Amino acid sequence: MDVISVIRTKRDKGELSDAQIDWVVDAYTRGEVADEQMSALAMAILLNGMTAGEINRWTDAMIASGERMDFSGLPRPTADKHSTGGVGDKITLPLAPLVAACGVAVPQLSGRGLGHTGGTLDKLESIPGWRAQLSNDEMLAVLGDIGAVICAAGDGLAPADKKLYALRDVTGTVEAIPLIASSIMSKKIAEGTGALVLDVKVGTGAFMKDLADARELARTMVRLGGDHGVRTVALLTDMSTPLGLTAGNALEVRESVEVLAGGGPADVVELTLALAREMLAAAGMTDRDPADALANGSAMDVWRRMIAAQGGDPDAPLPVAREQHVVTAPSTGILTRLDAYDVGIAAWRLGAGRSRKEEPVQAGAGAELHAKPGDLVTAGRPLLTLHTDTPERFAYALESLESAFDIAPEGTAFTPTPIVVDRIGPTA
Amino acid sequence: MDVISVIRTKRDKGELSDAQIDWVVDAYTRGEVADEQMSALAMAILLNGMTAGEINRWTDAMIASGERMDFSGLPRPTADKHSTGGVGDKITLPLAPLVAACGVAVPQLSGRGLGHTGGTLDKLESIPGWRAQLSNDEMLAVLGDIGAVICAAGDGLAPADKKLYALRDVTGTVEAIPLIASSIMSKKIAEGTGALVLDVKVGTGAFMKDLADARELARTMVRLGGDHGVRTVALLTDMSTPLGLTAGNALEVRESVEVLAGGGPADVVELTLALAREMLAAAGMTDRDPADALANGSAMDVWRRMIAAQGGDPDAPLPVAREQHVVTAPSTGILTRLDAYDVGIAAWRLGAGRSRKEEPVQAGAGAELHAKPGDLVTAGRPLLTLHTDTPERFAYALESLESAFDIAPEGTAFTPTPIVVDRIGPTA
Repeated sequence: MDVISVIRTKRDKGELSDAQIDWVVDAYTRGEVADEQMSALAMAILLNGMTAGEINRWTDAMIASGERMDFSGLPRPTADKHSTGGVGDKITLPLAPLVAACGVAVPQLSGRGLGHTGGTLDKLESIPGWRAQLSNDEMLAVLGDIGAVICAAGDGLAPADKKLYALRDVTGTVEAIPLIASSIMSKKIAEGTGALVLDVKVGTGAFMKDLADARELARTMVRLGGDHGVRTVALLTDMSTPLGLTAGNALEVRESVEVLAGGGPADVVELTLALAREMLAAAGMTDRDPADALANGSAMDVWRRMIAAQGGDPDAPLPVAREQHVVTAPSTGILTRLDAYDVGIAAWRLGAGRSRKEEPVQAGAGAELHAKPGDLVTAGRPLLTLHTDTPERFAYALESLESAFDIAPEGTAFTPTPIVVDRIGPTA
Repeated sequence: MDVISVIRTKRDKGELSDAQIDWVVDAYTRGEVADEQMSALAMAILLNGMTAGEINRWTDAMIASGERMDFSGLPRPTADKHSTGGVGDKITLPLAPLVAACGVAVPQLSGRGLGHTGGTLDKLESIPGWRAQLSNDEMLAVLGDIGAVICAAGDGLAPADKKLYALRDVTGTVEAIPLIASSIMSKKIAEGTGALVLDVKVGTGAFMKDLADARELARTMVRLGGDHGVRTVALLTDMSTPLGLTAGNALEVRESVEVLAGGGPADVVELTLALAREMLAAAGMTDRDPADALANGSAMDVWRRMIAAQGGDPDAPLPVAREQHVVTAPSTGILTRLDAYDVGIAAWRLGAGRSRKEEPVQAGAGAELHAKPGDLVTAGRPLLTLHTDTPERFAYALESLESAFDIAPEGTAFTPTPIVVDRIGPTA
């Protein structure tokens, strides 16, 4: 097998054979195919696409590059959730204990944030004592005992994906739907979950800005899951404005705890329940209403045990940033737009996110919203509060907010965007 | 400047700015942009193309990466020729001394062969004593004394191109017309020739199999030359069958000397004269007929002095391969096709070419043709003679000849393909 003939096949809009895919993924993982060869192939895939058969085989090859986990020894069904990432997207935090409280085990292998969207592990690490790294045995033990675990994905799952993702990140080839879909799904399939619910974000603050692209990605992943025996459903959800009222690590933990306590912002509650219902249904557990588990405290109980099992103190006060800066509304009227991307960039610049993988994040940094689109705001009253330990960052963060919102005169008609835009289930 | 934004611009079918091009070529040459980033960009250029303005600027940036030569001190005008490479293409050997004999200086910086087409330097190195490496001062001295020099291009010209070409070679991105054109033209412009004639081959044995692609490449290079003050003309010439009756290093030197002696195969003579007339015209020397310089021995005289100036003995016997194998015609009739690519592969397999840059070549190896398309052949009589020092290669070479030719019944109509298919001059 010869890498140039593989690259040429895709470059010239041909279909890669199973043997070509198996070979090139394996040879790249082993270092026989060089980075510069794989990046040329990735660009050709981005520009010329892949058939469903090619994406399936590529995913298989990535799974075959590493170990597979097995949850079949657990007494309950498993369901996992993956979000493509958004601003203020803390849903995993209340969702995992909520679904576990309803009787379905949730093995949630998560990542860290990069760029304007936060990472689940970064958020949980703002809880004093909590640690993200678990061995496979520890993970299985927490999952078995408590029913939910959120931890860092080990290096053993789909190492080909890890290497390829790092390459795509520096070569402008992240935005290839076949490669995004196979990257996400290879890890979820190797992880061994029985059911999977995908939260595919669309809008300014999402990776996918365009509904058609988001829908194609969702369809591709749902099909990949089904073809690999994982019951998979996707919700397309709005990411034109931040989820909830906070973007930042400890700020989002606080909001998640409010949801588990039966409160919290309406959009976060709505999306958490919608995803929980899909996870329960995909796992075959259709007789439970997750709203009950929020109301009766059973989800909060799982949360507290889950945090404690990884060394965290659920009662410890959360870190608070040393400095605050309030942004006030420049006029009175209806807030018709509050841009997710701009708020995400502001939170990132305040210290909630990182630019490079090795950078630390500030636990207390981020943005707190005092209004959401559709709300009435008053000139001179707080619109956002910015939090950081390093106040020299305020000016830079404020730059990103310069055209982040629109306020229309009172009485202007406003149509809210639904949180769940569409649902993509398996097709027969 | 950020390499990912440059890659994304081209990936998303945008036009690169002058600043982006200057930066990315320079940063790649310095090693700040990594190979895997440049190969992704090269694939995006291959698939999405470049505007004339982008190709011009890219060429400028490659020229700026190294030194420029200057022939303005010579007492005569200069003209150079570049061929995109073909099977049996020995034209540079008789052409350079012929044009010099007509009063135009020919600074011919050449390369070695890779794959199924031979390299000018490999051919000349079959002459005992001849050496390809000259310093810039030595080159200028030979050019000034004799009027023609054929030598290896130094490392100082367009080092960005050298690095980029090596990368394209291993990443399936050679076949990008903007990159081919800027690669060829950056070196020719940096070399400082006043006029340039391009021999763009088209056909099975050429790099460009397709006439439309060859025409686009020719137009792109002619425009690039004109925009950089080099009077440039291109001939599109046929490479569906080998040029002349030999493919192989010493075999082709022998045939070139026959042409300089006033003989040689008709197609080699015709193309040599056509290119010589274009070079003389481009250099402003329109009162000489190069056919006279072949007939009166003045071109042969320049050849002998040029070879001797680089240590070669023009009277020494040329190397002959140790073993020969004759391929006979399987039937009697008209030879209607003798495929250039297949013959080129056979010559390469016999030892005339190399697979990797470091490999040596056999001086005597190659293929000798006893008939050309249009000739009558007789069953059982020789059609080709194969030459090699390593007879174990015969079987492998013969494989490539299995469907290399067609013989039609005597009397079948046969229309020969003209050597010069088209001429692309500068447009106003």
